[in-house]
Amino acid sequence: MPPRTSVYLDHAASTQMLPEAVEAMTAVFGAPGNASSLHGSGRTARRRLEEAREAIAAAVGARPSEVIFTGGGTESDNLAIKGIYWARRRADEQRRRIIVSAVEHHAVLDPAQWLAADAGAELVVLPVGADGVVSPAELRAELEAHADQTALISVMWANNEVGSIQPIAEIAALGAEFGVPVHSDAIQAVGHLPVDFAASGLSALSLAAHKFGGPQGVGALLLGREVACVPLQHGGGHERDVRSGTQDVAGAAGMAAALTWCVEHLEENTARVRALASRLSETLLGVEGAVRNGAAPDARLPGNVHVSFIGCEGDSLLMLLDAKGIECSTGSACTAGVAQASHVLLAMGLDMADARSSLRFSLSHTTTDADIDAVAQVIDEVVDRARAAGLVSAPGGKVS
Amino acid sequence: MPPRTSVYLDHAASTQMLPEAVEAMTAVFGAPGNASSLHGSGRTARRRLEEAREAIAAAVGARPSEVIFTGGGTESDNLAIKGIYWARRRADEQRRRIIVSAVEHHAVLDPAQWLAADAGAELVVLPVGADGVVSPAELRAELEAHADQTALISVMWANNEVGSIQPIAEIAALGAEFGVPVHSDAIQAVGHLPVDFAASGLSALSLAAHKFGGPQGVGALLLGREVACVPLQHGGGHERDVRSGTQDVAGAAGMAAALTWCVEHLEENTARVRALASRLSETLLGVEGAVRNGAAPDARLPGNVHVSFIGCEGDSLLMLLDAKGIECSTGSACTAGVAQASHVLLAMGLDMADARSSLRFSLSHTTTDADIDAVAQVIDEVVDRARAAGLVSAPGGKVS
Repeated sequence: MPPRTSVYLDHAASTQMLPEAVEAMTAVFGAPGNASSLHGSGRTARRRLEEAREAIAAAVGARPSEVIFTGGGTESDNLAIKGIYWARRRADEQRRRIIVSAVEHHAVLDPAQWLAADAGAELVVLPVGADGVVSPAELRAELEAHADQTALISVMWANNEVGSIQPIAEIAALGAEFGVPVHSDAIQAVGHLPVDFAASGLSALSLAAHKFGGPQGVGALLLGREVACVPLQHGGGHERDVRSGTQDVAGAAGMAAALTWCVEHLEENTARVRALASRLSETLLGVEGAVRNGAAPDARLPGNVHVSFIGCEGDSLLMLLDAKGIECSTGSACTAGVAQASHVLLAMGLDMADARSSLRFSLSHTTTDADIDAVAQVIDEVVDRARAAGLVSAPGGKVS
Repeated sequence: MPPRTSVYLDHAASTQMLPEAVEAMTAVFGAPGNASSLHGSGRTARRRLEEAREAIAAAVGARPSEVIFTGGGTESDNLAIKGIYWARRRADEQRRRIIVSAVEHHAVLDPAQWLAADAGAELVVLPVGADGVVSPAELRAELEAHADQTALISVMWANNEVGSIQPIAEIAALGAEFGVPVHSDAIQAVGHLPVDFAASGLSALSLAAHKFGGPQGVGALLLGREVACVPLQHGGGHERDVRSGTQDVAGAAGMAAALTWCVEHLEENTARVRALASRLSETLLGVEGAVRNGAAPDARLPGNVHVSFIGCEGDSLLMLLDAKGIECSTGSACTAGVAQASHVLLAMGLDMADARSSLRFSLSHTTTDADIDAVAQVIDEVVDRARAAGLVSAPGGKVS
């Protein structure tokens, strides 16, 4: 395969692995060992696993025993939503309400909707403002009316599409006040924003390694010791009996190495990435008919730039940019290929056409000024061509 | 860390990664890309993922669309048991029976028991003979009485403790005759025995990469196109909407490379490993009071040797051998550390003391004559010492 020469501005979908993570994994690959085996090789695997757990805990302000290794962010979210719902309902049959924000990732929305369709849950969706941010006052009103029927609250730390940061401390405090556990999908935040689990007051928090330079297929759920959670995967009783399955020692080591690096370099990377994102944002907003979506620059993920190009089809823009070697996204990669408007943008009040005219650019510490220059060189021409092609008529399918 | 110099005879717990698998993963680690992204890097990731899917399908006689990537064997088993149960019950409320063999891994037994405790399932456990093998006649009798109330059947391809191979073709034929889907946990079989999904007649089959030289944390469920299965993980709709979550492209590539290698070298490795296992078995059975467990050599996994040393405590034997640099297991690594007799051995008719006096040695293609020599040199002394120490009194806890 020839070396990739494209300008990669889709780090929120999956970022480049850090050399530190690759090295940590390669070291484990050389030795056999199941971390549950009692012999020397097993104990070595166990030690590496526990060292990874400790490093991750230290990086996000958790206790090592609060780190539950999973097979990725979607599993972490599903475990939190279903596991805490099942546990709370089992303890008190009337606790069937699940409160989520309207801008959650499908990995939170879909398990909640499944519980509503199949397991008697009642889904309560908190609206967001034009900036994509939930109002704690709305949550308070909901809890004042129904706290004793509420199983859990799930509000993401920062949005994966528009980057808006949610008032997690206030939301967690409301959960504590009303005795309702709060989960946060922090998959876009961890490694990119300061995240302190203990200080947050959350009951549970999801993270995924491939969003901060670790491997795909590896994640964790931070789960307070006192939070009851029914497993998704039953079996040998690994991970506090909450997540059975032979642990991925190399994956855990890779995730730990990446997260340690990100947290150590957080300040300098944030400054650098924010400056580049600001330049990119200015460049894009200089195009006629371009509108920024999401919160103000200091209230969003440092590397997130999200813009609607009125009158264009996002997919056309994406493909035209790709043809010029610039890689970005129309939203969540997870639902890419489905020609429907983003539920996040619709919840923020955009109309269908404007929602479908948007692009997400996501930067990382590997992004350079040359990458921004490359966008600047082609964006006018690309938008002109996409606008000339016009909007494809909206499909009849559901908008979820 | 100093190089490992021990004699590793616990390949069934987790085997050494093949260089081909490490190389395939390292190649992917160098490039960013989410297999759902639409741009060039995303398409490259997708191509690698689909090539891995095709290679795995070709290696196990499945169609590529039947390969559902998962985060490991336990997830594959849980998805099959819960997913097929939920789907069958949804279609027909009276289908609540789950038939499993008495010697299944906890990754099958525990989800089935959970469904029985929490979701109205009725668990039917098929007994096994002294060789650890299920009788198709027993299954036929059960199906003749209750086929229309049966959600699914799950019988493993080969047992993880004693290596006994089950009559899967007959079991699958019975399922077909009575219209009941059959799942098989083939986690110990794939890569070590000829496995052909299409020819087997199974509806679903679990496999795990780290049992055949691929990475930990990666597995697959082979799932017939027509088999309804409710997801365990909801979200972006990946993997035929059966298993949402960003796919682990490197892991899939590593699993594919390992499995391809194993299948290509199956015949020569089987012959070699069987010969070494036979030598080891003779050596161990030469010890006074040693008894072989499980089926005859040609009716078990090639690399599996399982022996009870009457009057000894298995954990003592394991530790004494470990002190001499020889690594083996008392049973499933997943339940290691729990001082209870194996449910597999008890189901085969061993009494508690004999069950607790056993060791599993599991060999692979990397095992050498020198490894067997090393065991031969120390086994008499180790057994003498363990026998002198005697049996620790059995704990009062449950035996599951």
